[in-house]
Amino acid sequence: MAEFRKDPIVGQWVIVHTDNSWGPDRYAVEDHTPRDRATCQFCPGREHMTPPELDAVRSNGEHSGWKLRVVPNKFPALKIEGTIDARKSGLFDYSNGVGAHEVVIETPDHNKQLADLSLDEIKWVIDKYQSRLVDLTGDKRFKYIIIFKNYGDSAGATIEHSHTQIIALPMIPKYVVEELEGTRRYFEQNQRCVFCDMLAQESKDEDRIVIQNDEFVAFCPFVQRYPFETWILPKNHSSEFASLSDSGKINLAATLKNLLLKMRKCLHDPAYNFYLHVAPINYEGQQSFHWHIEFVPKLTNPSGFEWGTGFYTVRTAPHVAARFLREVN
Amino acid sequence: MAEFRKDPIVGQWVIVHTDNSWGPDRYAVEDHTPRDRATCQFCPGREHMTPPELDAVRSNGEHSGWKLRVVPNKFPALKIEGTIDARKSGLFDYSNGVGAHEVVIETPDHNKQLADLSLDEIKWVIDKYQSRLVDLTGDKRFKYIIIFKNYGDSAGATIEHSHTQIIALPMIPKYVVEELEGTRRYFEQNQRCVFCDMLAQESKDEDRIVIQNDEFVAFCPFVQRYPFETWILPKNHSSEFASLSDSGKINLAATLKNLLLKMRKCLHDPAYNFYLHVAPINYEGQQSFHWHIEFVPKLTNPSGFEWGTGFYTVRTAPHVAARFLREVN
Repeated sequence: MAEFRKDPIVGQWVIVHTDNSWGPDRYAVEDHTPRDRATCQFCPGREHMTPPELDAVRSNGEHSGWKLRVVPNKFPALKIEGTIDARKSGLFDYSNGVGAHEVVIETPDHNKQLADLSLDEIKWVIDKYQSRLVDLTGDKRFKYIIIFKNYGDSAGATIEHSHTQIIALPMIPKYVVEELEGTRRYFEQNQRCVFCDMLAQESKDEDRIVIQNDEFVAFCPFVQRYPFETWILPKNHSSEFASLSDSGKINLAATLKNLLLKMRKCLHDPAYNFYLHVAPINYEGQQSFHWHIEFVPKLTNPSGFEWGTGFYTVRTAPHVAARFLREVN
Repeated sequence: MAEFRKDPIVGQWVIVHTDNSWGPDRYAVEDHTPRDRATCQFCPGREHMTPPELDAVRSNGEHSGWKLRVVPNKFPALKIEGTIDARKSGLFDYSNGVGAHEVVIETPDHNKQLADLSLDEIKWVIDKYQSRLVDLTGDKRFKYIIIFKNYGDSAGATIEHSHTQIIALPMIPKYVVEELEGTRRYFEQNQRCVFCDMLAQESKDEDRIVIQNDEFVAFCPFVQRYPFETWILPKNHSSEFASLSDSGKINLAATLKNLLLKMRKCLHDPAYNFYLHVAPINYEGQQSFHWHIEFVPKLTNPSGFEWGTGFYTVRTAPHVAARFLREVN
């Protein structure tokens, strides 16, 4: 029989098939063979095809020797110039689409994905997540910065060269507001962080944990929206991704690489998204928040039920997904 | 430049590309040629492959002569038997997956889609939406009934024979709660229905209206989550889909058929979902709600930005989408 389960943070319900959970082979496979190398605007030698570089990692100071680049998005969802200029048309609030939209090109190698990079190279990527976040925080127009990665067509990727996107927004987005409110409500009731309590329960229950090291744990949450959804949390309470130490970044790189390799092997190189939920910037009172990464392989297409209700139906129970992920090397 | 726009009902923000809006040909096309007729469990002659019929439309009382059938889902997300039995495991609320999951097989013809049916046949489908809603309302365990349709792989359809699904839930789902709360808040502030006010503004602005007749209007809302998203609303305030009259059902059938044909022609037979947002059942105080249909063609894959924030990025502004839809016949 299926179970209803309720997320303790935002109050979302899901339907989890705890009996007859689907294994990895029940889901469709998407082909991710690289095709666009000949014209790729992110490849070395085509630096002129991106807007001017914002930041980079180089081995020797030479222009041709970059290991990683950060550039503005050539076709940004939002533009950095201008004022927000909020106004109203009858019922409707609207404003100018002011924001930042940047791209971290994670490697010069067109045929490598994030999972293929060395720990040092993944740490550089995380370094840039952090330094761009700090830099964009200096712009007082912005209230939230979302760092996210799309891999594969069905995850909404339009460029196959491995990259992450960063968008700075002049408002706190709905899902983050809901997480913040849920976290604050739980803190007021219990004087504890809901994510810390969730980690404690995951450690006790054990069967949904995928991997862990000194500083991070990756687990399939009891209330998943998608099969094989996995969250990465720092073990110790931390509201600030910006203050993550060097050793923290190495441990995070190791967790991320291990998870990416497990997902690739277990689910046949699935399309995926991941995003960081960090505390809002230029904002007071986020101490009860616990930053984290939500990793979602794209195995199914949401139906009218999901779109119309916000309910999710999950055909693989999280303890089953975690077991499959633990068992691959 | 793009615009931020805020939904006046649930407070969701979207980014709309008002300049350089994409036309219909910028979106990917999915092939919907029927393939599974030889083994289709919804085709005439294979009635034994579905669970026992709950309801049907027949021309002459013969078993073989059905025009439409309603059956329980053979692989239901939820089961009708049992008690909800809510309980807790540490932090987490959960309960048994009790509910109803039914299927309206809209036509015996495997190669016809809803758009191809006559007005009378579409009215039968709407009749069954209504009568199943009324019947399931008699089960006091249920608090919400969602009626939804998936067409095409990327809309989550798993059976190609034209059908609609109905799920009865023992709780009011998150998105409906948000709409109800938004509607009630607006009513308390303004003593008016937010949907009625939205309709008034759409009629005044004119440029987002796709089609209308005596009782219904279909328009691309000012705040869309998806390109070409279209809502169908009864022109006169009504919280109860169950009380829709015969003439209302004919006008709704005409609106739906016209919209489906326009979507097919304009967007090259897109995958789509639609769902009815009706008031909760066995519930007081829903009078401020205004039932409606949300129709969403599946033209893009949400990315990590959408999943991580609840923000939507729409590459075709609604007045542009509405113009394209108005102009096809």
